[in-house]
Formats: sequence, structure tokens, C-alpha cells
Amino acid sequence: MRQAFHEQLQDISEHLVGMTAQVADMIHTATDALLSQDIHLADQTVAADAEVDRSQEVVDERIIELVATQAPVAGELREVISALRTTANIERMGDLASHVAKVVRMRYPESAVPDELRTTFAAMGAAAEKMATKAGEVIRSRDLDLVEELQADDDEMDRLHRSMFLVVLDHDWPRPAETAVDLALLGRYYERFADHAVLIARHIHYLVTGETESHAEPQA
Amino acid sequence: MRQAFHEQLQDISEHLVGMTAQVADMIHTATDALLSQDIHLADQTVAADAEVDRSQEVVDERIIELVATQAPVAGELREVISALRTTANIERMGDLASHVAKVVRMRYPESAVPDELRTTFAAMGAAAEKMATKAGEVIRSRDLDLVEELQADDDEMDRLHRSMFLVVLDHDWPRPAETAVDLALLGRYYERFADHAVLIARHIHYLVTGETESHAEPQA
Repeated sequence: MRQAFHEQLQDISEHLVGMTAQVADMIHTATDALLSQDIHLADQTVAADAEVDRSQEVVDERIIELVATQAPVAGELREVISALRTTANIERMGDLASHVAKVVRMRYPESAVPDELRTTFAAMGAAAEKMATKAGEVIRSRDLDLVEELQADDDEMDRLHRSMFLVVLDHDWPRPAETAVDLALLGRYYERFADHAVLIARHIHYLVTGETESHAEPQA
Repeated sequence: MRQAFHEQLQDISEHLVGMTAQVADMIHTATDALLSQDIHLADQTVAADAEVDRSQEVVDERIIELVATQAPVAGELREVISALRTTANIERMGDLASHVAKVVRMRYPESAVPDELRTTFAAMGAAAEKMATKAGEVIRSRDLDLVEELQADDDEMDRLHRSMFLVVLDHDWPRPAETAVDLALLGRYYERFADHAVLIARHIHYLVTGETESHAEPQA
């Protein structure tokens, strides 16, 4: 019985790692679309979001089946609930990558990101992709050093996000309100994407140590 | 056994209704703070968010205890998982109300909302509060008519959100980029708050009918 439980949980865990790879790929593609005004990459990102949604449904069903058939005890239940929270976090990361792609579509053939902020958004995209991949590694390995790394990565994302606002809020910045609005929302999407990666890692941290790590921002 | 399960589930359900009242109150207070530059109301909203977080922890613990002690079967498990998703949605609504309050604090003693958009934000605040309250009624009553109403309320929120952007994106709009950024983010907070109310209702809809209602936007 217990062995069956752990085998099924392992199987679910592998699906979760696969889902983090899906959204890492999505944010990579969305960022490419954003920086090259590539409408096909934008469409590809939006289509990939539907796949992530389906993955969530499949994994959630497996989780329900696991609980229904294996009657987990309290500690095991925490694993199961963490898995449910993880699918929800990853699903949301897919939405946010898709939101980036939709801004690309809305502004096409213009670029939503002005030249002076291309480097910043490239860095935010790279950070977001790395964080999604690392969240997958945390799920697989339960390596708490990686949880720490993700917190540091998130600090870097916040720094990039703030540096973007410094440009937009400069009194001499010559762009229209539309650009400011696009950038504010894009910045928010990347920042939230990163937050969800941190949340996934924190759930694992809690499972391993029993301690909740209380940092101010990420919540879902 | 089954009676104990349903009594405990009923108890959890009442806590969930209480949490929706908490966040309805928060978005009301945050909107008052926003429209009157009232720093005390802003602080009150941020403090209330910590209470919502605690409520979530308490209710989540009860849910885990329920599953651990009552070994629910598949249909019952769906109820339990819906309750978990609901605490997560309400907790996020608290975050978003708190985000509104933090914009008030950041711009104090200036107003983040210019005169020409006060009416729109007052309407968004009223809609958000109503939707949180209605989500609580859906949890209590499982009245599917209210689920439909919430979808309509969300359409109204989207309309308000779009009308706000029409003002900001008008070429003759005379405000600085900072104001555009504040408004884009504030608009997003209200819109997401409303989305989470809809999501709560959709979970109930699914529990009652077994059908997922597929509308484009809200996901969490």
C-alpha cells in the first residue's frame, strides 16, 4: 500500500517537473516573440497555454485518484496538497507567459518594448525561464540550496523590475502613456511568473523542513 | 462517519464565507483609502491581509484534518479540493486589496487616481466588493443563478477596466507616465480580484453540475 502510494506520488512528481519545463519553454518563446515582434511565436505561446491547462487537469485527476485509492495519512496528505498547489502555480505561470504573448499580438507589428528597455526585458525573460527550470529541479531533487537560489533569483527579478520603472518614470522619458501601460503590465507578468516559481520552491521547503519560510512578497 | 464528514465540511464552508466577508471588507476599505488618500485606511487594509493569511492557514489545517480523519470517497474529495482552491483564491483577493492600499501609501499625500477617473474606480471598488460578497453567497447557498450573476458582474468589471484605459490611452490625456503606470496596475488588481470571485463560483458550479464552465479569462 505505502509503496503504491509513493510510486504514484513519484509519477505525479515527474509530471510536475514536465509542467515546469512546459512553462519555462513558454516564457522563453514569449520573450523571443516580445523582442522580435514575432507573431508566430506569440501564437505558439498562447497555444501552449492550453496544453498546460490540460496537463493540470490530468495531474489533478491523478492526485484525486491517489487520495481516493490510497487513503494517505497526515504527512502524506501534505505531499498531496503541495502537489495540488504546485499544479495551480504552474498553470498560472502558463497564463502569465500567455499574457506576455498577447501584448505582442496587441501591438503587432509595433514593438511593445522600446529600444532602451530591450536588454532589461531580455534579462527578465532569461531569469523567468531559469526560475521555472529551477523550480522543476527543486520538485525533483528537494535540494534546499536551490530553494535559496530561487529566492536570490527572485531578488534579481525584482531589481530588474525596479530598474525598468526607473526608466519609465524618468521625467524626460519621451514615450506615450500606452507604452508606459504596456511596460507596467509586462513587468508585472514577469514578476508574478517568478513569484510562482518561488512559491513552488517554498512548498517543497515546507514539506522537507516543516517550517514555513516567511518572505514578504510571493503569494498565490 | 459520513455525518461527521458533512458537519466538518459545513464548518469549513462557514469559515470560507467568513473569509469572503473579510476580503469584501478589505477591498471596500482599500477603495475608500484610494479615493480619499486616507493613509489610516490603507494601513488598516494591509493589516487585515495578515488576518486573511491566518484564516487561510487555519482553514487549510481543518481541511487536512478532515481528509486525514474521515477518509473521504471520490465525490467528497472533490468538495475538499474545491475548499482548498477556494482558500487560495480568497487569500489572493486579500493580497490584491492590500496591493491597492500599498499604492495609496506610495503616492500619499498625492492621489494615485486623477479626478477624471474617480467615478470609474469607485465603480470598480463597488463591483469588486459586491462580487466578493456574492462569492460567499455562492459558497453558502450553491445557487447557480448567482454563478451566472457573477459572470455578468465580471463582464461589468471588464467594461469599467476598458473604459479606464480609454481615458489613459487618449492622445490628449495630460498626465505623466507615473500616473499611467499606477492606473494600469490598480486596474489589474481590481480585475484580478474579480476574477478570483468568479473562480470560486466556478468551482461550486463544477461541484454541483460536474461540468466545467469554460470562459476565456479567469484562471488561478
